[in-house]
Amino acid sequence: MTESVDDKIARVAFNADGLVAAIVQQWDTREVLMLGWMDAEALRRTLTQGRVTYWSRSRQKYWRKGDTSGHYQEVRGMRLDCDGDAILVSVEQHGPACHTGTRACFDADDLSPVVEG
Amino acid sequence: MTESVDDKIARVAFNADGLVAAIVQQWDTREVLMLGWMDAEALRRTLTQGRVTYWSRSRQKYWRKGDTSGHYQEVRGMRLDCDGDAILVSVEQHGPACHTGTRACFDADDLSPVVEG
Repeated sequence: MTESVDDKIARVAFNADGLVAAIVQQWDTREVLMLGWMDAEALRRTLTQGRVTYWSRSRQKYWRKGDTSGHYQEVRGMRLDCDGDAILVSVEQHGPACHTGTRACFDADDLSPVVEG
Repeated sequence: MTESVDDKIARVAFNADGLVAAIVQQWDTREVLMLGWMDAEALRRTLTQGRVTYWSRSRQKYWRKGDTSGHYQEVRGMRLDCDGDAILVSVEQHGPACHTGTRACFDADDLSPVVEG
């Protein structure tokens, strides 16, 4: 029996704000591109449309990545973590993932951990 | 001039609970292992000890991965994202990363997105 989209969404442990963290990874190179947030409706759209939709916390609205920029994300797979509060989204990223123009949102800022003696 | 650990921590945009999301990735295979959370002190320890420390939201205490299980995480690199509220931690993972015994916390639960016609 195939699990319904509603049943999939019901398995997710959304936080107090109704959101779940979505880690987005390029499917072939495995580069981590960005971290976004989804509410139940953004998750439903992502599960069913083949394109990644987020809930924008700063703009308080749905944001289907690429609709403005053209830098859209094709969904290749989605996995839920062991406690249900994080989703790993495997995508084909078209163009840069970051609004700053870099490929990934983690490209610009190295925290350079240093083990102290 | 080398940036101090305090300066690095000051660049992070912690959320209302004082936490930042930490995506943990195996440095060579680029597998995404888990998503954890750090407060400023957990971040300081991770930046300086060469081992990953989290803030456990469920247990409300610091948790240096591997101290109990032996499945520790050696820090290889850390990067901050473009809006400062997510960190990508590159690690050498010893043993399974997930408390369920799987390599990664995303191994068990496939959400199987399906594009609707």
